[in-house]
Amino acid sequence: MTIKKIGIVSRCDHEDALDMVRDIVEHFKSQVDIAVTSNTADPLDLQDVEVIAIEEMRDKGVELLISVGGDGTVLRTIARMDDPLPILGINMGTLGFLVDVNPADAIKAIGEALQGFKYTERSRLNVKLNGEKIPPATNEVVLTTARPAKILTFRITIDDREVEDVRADGVVIATPTGSTAYAMSAGGPIIDPNVNATLIVPLAPFKLSSRPWVVPADSLIKVEMIIPEKEAALVVDGQYTHTIQENDVVTLTRSNFPARFVETSASGFYERVQSKLR
Amino acid sequence: MTIKKIGIVSRCDHEDALDMVRDIVEHFKSQVDIAVTSNTADPLDLQDVEVIAIEEMRDKGVELLISVGGDGTVLRTIARMDDPLPILGINMGTLGFLVDVNPADAIKAIGEALQGFKYTERSRLNVKLNGEKIPPATNEVVLTTARPAKILTFRITIDDREVEDVRADGVVIATPTGSTAYAMSAGGPIIDPNVNATLIVPLAPFKLSSRPWVVPADSLIKVEMIIPEKEAALVVDGQYTHTIQENDVVTLTRSNFPARFVETSASGFYERVQSKLR
Amino acid sequence: MTIKKIGIVSRCDHEDALDMVRDIVEHFKSQVDIAVTSNTADPLDLQDVEVIAIEEMRDKGVELLISVGGDGTVLRTIARMDDPLPILGINMGTLGFLVDVNPADAIKAIGEALQGFKYTERSRLNVKLNGEKIPPATNEVVLTTARPAKILTFRITIDDREVEDVRADGVVIATPTGSTAYAMSAGGPIIDPNVNATLIVPLAPFKLSSRPWVVPADSLIKVEMIIPEKEAALVVDGQYTHTIQENDVVTLTRSNFPARFVETSASGFYERVQSKLR
Amino acid sequence: MTIKKIGIVSRCDHEDALDMVRDIVEHFKSQVDIAVTSNTADPLDLQDVEVIAIEEMRDKGVELLISVGGDGTVLRTIARMDDPLPILGINMGTLGFLVDVNPADAIKAIGEALQGFKYTERSRLNVKLNGEKIPPATNEVVLTTARPAKILTFRITIDDREVEDVRADGVVIATPTGSTAYAMSAGGPIIDPNVNATLIVPLAPFKLSSRPWVVPADSLIKVEMIIPEKEAALVVDGQYTHTIQENDVVTLTRSNFPARFVETSASGFYERVQSKLR
Repeated sequence: MTIKKIGIVSRCDHEDALDMVRDIVEHFKSQVDIAVTSNTADPLDLQDVEVIAIEEMRDKGVELLISVGGDGTVLRTIARMDDPLPILGINMGTLGFLVDVNPADAIKAIGEALQGFKYTERSRLNVKLNGEKIPPATNEVVLTTARPAKILTFRITIDDREVEDVRADGVVIATPTGSTAYAMSAGGPIIDPNVNATLIVPLAPFKLSSRPWVVPADSLIKVEMIIPEKEAALVVDGQYTHTIQENDVVTLTRSNFPARFVETSASGFYERVQSKLR
Repeated sequence: MTIKKIGIVSRCDHEDALDMVRDIVEHFKSQVDIAVTSNTADPLDLQDVEVIAIEEMRDKGVELLISVGGDGTVLRTIARMDDPLPILGINMGTLGFLVDVNPADAIKAIGEALQGFKYTERSRLNVKLNGEKIPPATNEVVLTTARPAKILTFRITIDDREVEDVRADGVVIATPTGSTAYAMSAGGPIIDPNVNATLIVPLAPFKLSSRPWVVPADSLIKVEMIIPEKEAALVVDGQYTHTIQENDVVTLTRSNFPARFVETSASGFYERVQSKLR
Repeated sequence: MTIKKIGIVSRCDHEDALDMVRDIVEHFKSQVDIAVTSNTADPLDLQDVEVIAIEEMRDKGVELLISVGGDGTVLRTIARMDDPLPILGINMGTLGFLVDVNPADAIKAIGEALQGFKYTERSRLNVKLNGEKIPPATNEVVLTTARPAKILTFRITIDDREVEDVRADGVVIATPTGSTAYAMSAGGPIIDPNVNATLIVPLAPFKLSSRPWVVPADSLIKVEMIIPEKEAALVVDGQYTHTIQENDVVTLTRSNFPARFVETSASGFYERVQSKLR
Repeated sequence: MTIKKIGIVSRCDHEDALDMVRDIVEHFKSQVDIAVTSNTADPLDLQDVEVIAIEEMRDKGVELLISVGGDGTVLRTIARMDDPLPILGINMGTLGFLVDVNPADAIKAIGEALQGFKYTERSRLNVKLNGEKIPPATNEVVLTTARPAKILTFRITIDDREVEDVRADGVVIATPTGSTAYAMSAGGPIIDPNVNATLIVPLAPFKLSSRPWVVPADSLIKVEMIIPEKEAALVVDGQYTHTIQENDVVTLTRSNFPARFVETSASGFYERVQSKLR
């Protein structure tokens, strides 16, 4: 397999990231067709590239996405694709869990990927707010109080079996990928991405015996705000915030379309976790 | 010792609490002088009582305060007194940690207290925001993100020794009294109120090895927001919220004026904790 | 389906348990063939029952096992069967997680089961110590120091990928069924039994950033003692203890033969957990 | 102040430690009188030193103790002194909390100390087993099951007020100094050594709402084994093990004679904790 067309997305508020995009384009434009998003194209005045929205890249023939930035760039990019393209993250900042490749290794890693690549699939969570679909989560969905220090009450059901009424500052519902992100700070376990499960972690629960729950990924998870007169926020992947209110219902199911991460020579899951825990 | 003048404060949004105030006034007005706050007086149309603001009750001769409500009522009342009067809490709601007496026992408990009472002193925390004093905390001070899912960075020093740069959703600084309130949900230990210490607990810390700290109550604790472009909230006793910003500094010291709780025949500290943990 | 032959196992050190066995035999001996173990038969002097070792009950036509005792009785019974018979637990003691039926309801529940029953399958862990098979675990395997307060070091690999060198008092490797037993006291999450995973929880780990791990049940988990001159114990289901030493290797895989629990009208998984957590 | 007589204690199973002792003696024997224990003297064939048991060093005029080894050497040395001499730890192994000085800096640090030194005092716990005194604890006392995976039940009282009946693998009772040792692995908070408190941490408690307790150091803490037919171990500072049984009572009070650690230019408490947590 050889790749014919790649897309590039990047942070556009960092000079370094934009410089990296320019380097990548210069280096590979004779080899493959290159598409960039308008955000990235505008400040760069690039020649020989096509401008395509992320949402349309797959339809327009892009086979591989290069993300130039950090975990946030990767998460926002994946969120915009119904059926995510394989993504290769160039890490322009601090240690990320979803971005493998250092800037110094970027050209080499992309060059190798263009000769063909493998990718790992990572489950995403479909999210509905009162029945209406919002972009899926690659890491996690957090329901949390919008007024500091006001405790919330959630009713959580798994396939219509009631799990628990959680009185807490909030609740995190994470994929295995997200188990090493915010859910971990909240006290959750590390879940191997090959485990077909979803993780539920209460934030500062009132009931001291509360524990994280690991439930089947194929469950229908329903979270309902049951205390009146309070506002809360629904935050997806630390990126998208929605306001929720009394009696709002959030439902989560496994997405049919996983995130896809290009495998690199960089380290695997356990090595990455160890370097974070060290 | 016999008490000559009492004050009564109460929730004024609950019919039950107001009825209880009326009962107390009726029952004791021939025995002692009674002062109430205007909030409580207005809806009740009481005879034979004096209306005095909480702040002035001590100067106007009040020797004992009756609080009719829950923990919140007690906490707000104490916050308004520089040198808190002894307080006896009648519990009008769910289980409270600071309110000992059930409504059915109120008249009896007050009657006994009027013959003389003992009280326990509980340390409070003086709080300054950028050098300006705000009301002291009986339970805790929480610094927490005002934008859900945005992590903050705090620099914490104890007597000018740097303890830790905490990257977290927030940080709780609690008295021993507050160790069984919000700090406990955040993962803190139980601190006997006779221990002369202050408790610091990070909320969902990024660094997994973070632990709660127990430091001398006589320390000068300084918490500084060191990450720009973020907003946070400073919440005192779950009741008072202040907005804080980049480079704002919160300092905490032990107050010279403790909260004072009338001792009743109801259970002591360990029994109360056990009933909460059970 | 109607059941033709049942087996009964019981604690034999409790008068109540033996009385319950006698009642069951008296009540059902005209309806079904009944087999008991010699431990149970000897003190009872029962007529009309066959004495069969647990290991042979399946081959000798037993279709359903009644366990009279607590969780320990159930665990020891299952451990003796390569391909476990469905088991119905009569709870003769304190609250158990694996024994659903109270003594007062025993006759009725067994009567219903004899008309046909459903059962749920629960994964077990095959355990090898230095390559030699020992009885499988229904709840968990614990490796723990045999000399109090002497820390151990374990090397843990999952499918030959190194997970972590754990310095700790010990390590718990649990099935989802075991996640609500000892692993929970050690700080592990609750795992829904429908999740195909194995839980690894360090006991009092030296490294403060240590977290529980949830790994695929189909993994080959290898735990090696890597610190010389120390002794440890390998404890299966809290029932069977083996001594292990330097360089000993414990391997764990999912058993092909799950434990099987008869479903009763008593509560499901989530309800049972809630009653434990409450 | 100038020091006239020092004592040296060391590990005697490590060549490096013994070499260090020889270096120290050679370097300082013309300046001060030097005493060593017989354990250290025997393998070294030293001239110009006096052999004195640790217990008698204070009476025989020793003003400063040099400990050559790790935390264990320091702990065992302190345990043998009723009224501990100031101790300066040379760290011959892995990172220790109680040994400040690296081998390369030893001669310089000792030379400085001989010109006069300051020391910090750290509380110790007096321990009585069934009324009989055993050596005091500098870090902690652990009561733990002697049979792996057998849960114990302890009744804990503070000044005769019942705190909790703990069902657990064990319980740790630690000084602030010990809060950064084993108690921390068990989930306890960090306690500043200037806080006058004792820390109680259950090990793998059965009750999920169990929390660590911080109680006044001046309390009488009593721990009683209340479950019959079980054996447990009482371990002091990870060094001394006593067997305890049903109805045995362990009482702990603050010792009048603290451990004393020579202050060096090496880092203070908070810096040391940070380097451990990092």
